Amino acid sequence: MAKQMKTFVMKGIGEVGVMEKPVPADPGASGAIVKTTVALICTSDTHTVKGAIGERDNLTLGHEAVGIVESVGSEVTVAKPGDRVAVNAITPCYTCENCLRGYPSQCRQMLGGWKFANIKDGVFAEYFHVNNAEANLARIPDSVPDESAVYTTDMMSTGFMGAEHAHIPIGGSVAVFAQGPVGLMATAGARLLGAGLVIAVESVPKRQELARHFGADEVIDFTKEDPVERIRELTGGDGVDSAIEALGAQITFEACVKATRPGGTISVAGYFGEGDYVNIPREDWGVGMSDKVIRTGLCPGGRERMGRLLRLIENGRIDPTPMTTHTFPFEKIPEAFRLMDSKEDGVIKPLITF
Amino acid sequence: MAKQMKTFVMKGIGEVGVMEKPVPADPGASGAIVKTTVALICTSDTHTVKGAIGERDNLTLGHEAVGIVESVGSEVTVAKPGDRVAVNAITPCYTCENCLRGYPSQCRQMLGGWKFANIKDGVFAEYFHVNNAEANLARIPDSVPDESAVYTTDMMSTGFMGAEHAHIPIGGSVAVFAQGPVGLMATAGARLLGAGLVIAVESVPKRQELARHFGADEVIDFTKEDPVERIRELTGGDGVDSAIEALGAQITFEACVKATRPGGTISVAGYFGEGDYVNIPREDWGVGMSDKVIRTGLCPGGRERMGRLLRLIENGRIDPTPMTTHTFPFEKIPEAFRLMDSKEDGVIKPLITF
Amino acid sequence: MAKQMKTFVMKGIGEVGVMEKPVPADPGASGAIVKTTVALICTSDTHTVKGAIGERDNLTLGHEAVGIVESVGSEVTVAKPGDRVAVNAITPCYTCENCLRGYPSQCRQMLGGWKFANIKDGVFAEYFHVNNAEANLARIPDSVPDESAVYTTDMMSTGFMGAEHAHIPIGGSVAVFAQGPVGLMATAGARLLGAGLVIAVESVPKRQELARHFGADEVIDFTKEDPVERIRELTGGDGVDSAIEALGAQITFEACVKATRPGGTISVAGYFGEGDYVNIPREDWGVGMSDKVIRTGLCPGGRERMGRLLRLIENGRIDPTPMTTHTFPFEKIPEAFRLMDSKEDGVIKPLITF
Amino acid sequence: MAKQMKTFVMKGIGEVGVMEKPVPADPGASGAIVKTTVALICTSDTHTVKGAIGERDNLTLGHEAVGIVESVGSEVTVAKPGDRVAVNAITPCYTCENCLRGYPSQCRQMLGGWKFANIKDGVFAEYFHVNNAEANLARIPDSVPDESAVYTTDMMSTGFMGAEHAHIPIGGSVAVFAQGPVGLMATAGARLLGAGLVIAVESVPKRQELARHFGADEVIDFTKEDPVERIRELTGGDGVDSAIEALGAQITFEACVKATRPGGTISVAGYFGEGDYVNIPREDWGVGMSDKVIRTGLCPGGRERMGRLLRLIENGRIDPTPMTTHTFPFEKIPEAFRLMDSKEDGVIKPLITF
Repeated sequence: MAKQMKTFVMKGIGEVGVMEKPVPADPGASGAIVKTTVALICTSDTHTVKGAIGERDNLTLGHEAVGIVESVGSEVTVAKPGDRVAVNAITPCYTCENCLRGYPSQCRQMLGGWKFANIKDGVFAEYFHVNNAEANLARIPDSVPDESAVYTTDMMSTGFMGAEHAHIPIGGSVAVFAQGPVGLMATAGARLLGAGLVIAVESVPKRQELARHFGADEVIDFTKEDPVERIRELTGGDGVDSAIEALGAQITFEACVKATRPGGTISVAGYFGEGDYVNIPREDWGVGMSDKVIRTGLCPGGRERMGRLLRLIENGRIDPTPMTTHTFPFEKIPEAFRLMDSKEDGVIKPLITF
Repeated sequence: MAKQMKTFVMKGIGEVGVMEKPVPADPGASGAIVKTTVALICTSDTHTVKGAIGERDNLTLGHEAVGIVESVGSEVTVAKPGDRVAVNAITPCYTCENCLRGYPSQCRQMLGGWKFANIKDGVFAEYFHVNNAEANLARIPDSVPDESAVYTTDMMSTGFMGAEHAHIPIGGSVAVFAQGPVGLMATAGARLLGAGLVIAVESVPKRQELARHFGADEVIDFTKEDPVERIRELTGGDGVDSAIEALGAQITFEACVKATRPGGTISVAGYFGEGDYVNIPREDWGVGMSDKVIRTGLCPGGRERMGRLLRLIENGRIDPTPMTTHTFPFEKIPEAFRLMDSKEDGVIKPLITF
Repeated sequence: MAKQMKTFVMKGIGEVGVMEKPVPADPGASGAIVKTTVALICTSDTHTVKGAIGERDNLTLGHEAVGIVESVGSEVTVAKPGDRVAVNAITPCYTCENCLRGYPSQCRQMLGGWKFANIKDGVFAEYFHVNNAEANLARIPDSVPDESAVYTTDMMSTGFMGAEHAHIPIGGSVAVFAQGPVGLMATAGARLLGAGLVIAVESVPKRQELARHFGADEVIDFTKEDPVERIRELTGGDGVDSAIEALGAQITFEACVKATRPGGTISVAGYFGEGDYVNIPREDWGVGMSDKVIRTGLCPGGRERMGRLLRLIENGRIDPTPMTTHTFPFEKIPEAFRLMDSKEDGVIKPLITF
Repeated sequence: MAKQMKTFVMKGIGEVGVMEKPVPADPGASGAIVKTTVALICTSDTHTVKGAIGERDNLTLGHEAVGIVESVGSEVTVAKPGDRVAVNAITPCYTCENCLRGYPSQCRQMLGGWKFANIKDGVFAEYFHVNNAEANLARIPDSVPDESAVYTTDMMSTGFMGAEHAHIPIGGSVAVFAQGPVGLMATAGARLLGAGLVIAVESVPKRQELARHFGADEVIDFTKEDPVERIRELTGGDGVDSAIEALGAQITFEACVKATRPGGTISVAGYFGEGDYVNIPREDWGVGMSDKVIRTGLCPGGRERMGRLLRLIENGRIDPTPMTTHTFPFEKIPEAFRLMDSKEDGVIKPLITF
């Protein structure tokens, strides 16, 4: 009988639970099996359970994890059993049309690079399978602990993407709307990429504090003042060169368009979960003629990028661990999940240890 | 007493008329005076008169014209009296903050490069003044007639910008929504820039015919079939690499987002004249994660670009004159204006001769 | 006993010959076997035989071919036996570090995407093996004959790359040095990508004629006039926006740097076979401060790009077949090879039929 | 009689001296007169005196200075008498062909943006004239002292340009060859722009120390080990993503090409003062097919960029003043000049106070 392992699954819309499943035995020619060491819960896990991507039947949840290679397929050369590896939340095939076009996060179809806990079992399990392992297994440098490395799998990659897409000129001005973990990493990313003025918009004190820690020069509490007006004040009336949307809401998206100068970039890093439309304020968009650009993206994956993100930790450019507000052993993952869902107790990210 | 000239003005919202004004006498140190030879009426002139940019008091209309230099200021070296010149609709200063940032069409403020018939008298006059002439006067090659050259002042520059912003890979697929004069030049521009499949969306037979003439491989009549579905069919289900919006309407903008592949670009060349918002369809936008990019822009001006556009005519890459459906002497400009407003008689562009 | 096939091989430096080899039987999980229908000889085949990439032992030559899929591995979904396919000369893995960085032609190591007739048997054989077939097999549209499609495997992809890398502004000026098949396709590419003035430099009458056919506005015979001086004359003293080097020689490279305006791009599409150094003329390079850019590249491959190149043929943007000056059946490939080596009889490309 | 001022001039090749000249009285319509407060001597001043740009007759030297506006022309709106301003070494017109093309440092002709101490009197004088002042006068924030602000006029702008042109991926690896003031600012710039590994190559202990201070993770003493080999070791055999040349010499340029990965960028920030050619090592350049890019540039100027550089100082991203190793009053500028020429006493930059 196949060896069994514990997994944390979405039983159906609105329902989660721990269940036993067989340990994946065969990596396949191009795949790998990884033994999980630490994982993080993502707000999008809670969205999934609420039905954001539809019904699922005992699908293992989770897409942010690191671990130790258990086995690899015959075509995999970049890692061997025993290697400590990080696997990005997005695991593209790198050979389909969209991957070849340069959009691997859109592997085979829109958002199709997202496979864990979407079209295959996720990482909240004692073992998980990695497709296209040659491209998707990133070895972790010895000096980087698992508890740091796990942030490269989504939060750092997504947040930094927000900043990379923002087209920030050296010394330029950036506003980052919302300082959840993606927003915090967008703030850190803007700082890393040479912004001369980083303005964070956030009302929760713990998040404001972390925003300053990760590089915000100014923090605007939108419950106390109008962020667009305040941003204009801070930029001599001009607005910012770049605005990063890290919430996925109409109100912040609209503020991004308004807060940006002509020719500026609105970089979307949030997940827009509701409504038929997201609305661009017509006049602040220059009636379609302002040279403003609206970019979007999904967490970029791949071994090569992961290597660069891990290097940033290794060489002291960033320490993401202040975002870990809570730690739970895997047995208590239902409790961690409830916490992430409720956003109680000042939670930013709950870390799960295996 | 100052020499007088005839001008065609917006007397106020909804009212136009011919009036006499003094010929501008002094170009100023950095300016020039041009004697108009031919001009084109633009749909945006009709919008202006309807109040799109607010009340105006006897403002001379028009922003598309070529002519002969009458006089230049002391700092102007690029042209001299007697030279035949084209002047772009957009005449930036090139020294303000936004110009220095690389967005001259947003000179000093959003859309601020647009000065003719907006913040200063336009070109529907026997003479007109050009600010920052060193950067804005483009000499017309001998082999290019005025009737062709005048298309570089807006239609070619704006339509081509639509294609340039569309980030078309060589051999890529492009859909251009609406085939008015800007859309036709976007079609031509997509073809000029290496698109392998150009799909035009248009229902008016004359415009469909011109779309094919200027390079469309396929023309979709949106009154007969759903353009998004048809575009998907024509692209093997994928959608296009790039979509160009050349109307300025919710329905075409929305279709652009829907018709574009993940990672594709929506390039806006239209003027959005109505409503508080322009709405992005959330799911087709990949909930903000599709790697789709929405770009905007305003007719790029400047002598250097004008020189390249004129060269394209000179060297036989394009002949824009099939868009001239009607010709009127300046005395009959009120009639031409009524025609452009009513869009009767298959009008594309009415040319005015002086 | 394994089925045998005829192949045309490099027996050693300076020596070629026909030999029998077993038909490749097993595509491997990610590979494919293709039955060759037509192929083209490349000048780089003759360089290889002269020892340019070192000694080889009975290596099958050739890297430009199309054919019919004979068999595919278990992981290949994009083509099936019987499909007519084009395979680029460069067949990257798309999962190694350099591929993931966005440089698949540098797969695993510098120039490592070049595998045919370099690190594995080439295509001058009745059957050939394709690695990483999911990414490298491009189905040929019904309306595109093999004799046209085969040009997408190298000449069109390399020549167009020369133009794509040249950063040509719309209506800009381009000089293409040398009008062999790569240079001709660079000329065609510059035209396809919107150049307003294309200047070809070539002295052979047949090639001059083809240069005009594929889009050159001007052709300079460097044996009769100094091409740099003539280019400056043709551009009002400025030099060109972009220069494309399609020979791989010091004299043309140097002329490219000299003929280019400040801020211009020198795009290298040639193979530099000799010498320890390629020398940049210091003063014309603006003592390292001219904003000039020197780009290089190796024929971009991959199914997705191949699809776009095939579309350009399908939709009438280009017909590369005028470059086929000679046709030989496979039995006579030694003769074809000698012709390509000697460059006699006005040869541009010899086509081999199977 | 015109008011007189002291200036420090190049009397002829090899000869400098203090002389009196009239204070420039008339700024001209578009110019300004600035009263100098502090200046820096640049190694290129010493090159100029040795004849690098030819003979000059009592030309005032110097191009790095800040000061107080004395008077402005009638067209200047961005500053008024009494304002504290920084003026970049490069002062383009922003309206000529090259400026409009986006290469203002190549104003009117190659390197033509460089006007101070080249085609007009420089800044080593009690007053200096600024052409095109609207675009070239940058007001200095109150919190930034003159002694810091003066570094934005060349060293920060040029060194950062080296990093901006280097196309550094986030977390990528960069080698900077030579750690004079431009190299130090390239090191700082690479760090500011998100490099994950910055390797400086330098043998002088004081410069090695400053390299670490400004962000180098590793410093290679090329007198003790081969820098290319060491860079390969530090990058797991790959070479760096980007190499920055900050010396202007064959040996460092060649090392940049060798130390860079396929697809990498060589960014030239040095001034190449000698020889007919700068030589690219052919094989390490991948015989012209490695996807390596060689970029060049000249100190970018303009008020808008200066504003961003000043903001980086204002907001604590960088303090350039550790590069000031010596300070002299203007009376002692001949002594400062001799020191810069001899490079004795560990000099990096001598500051001149007025």
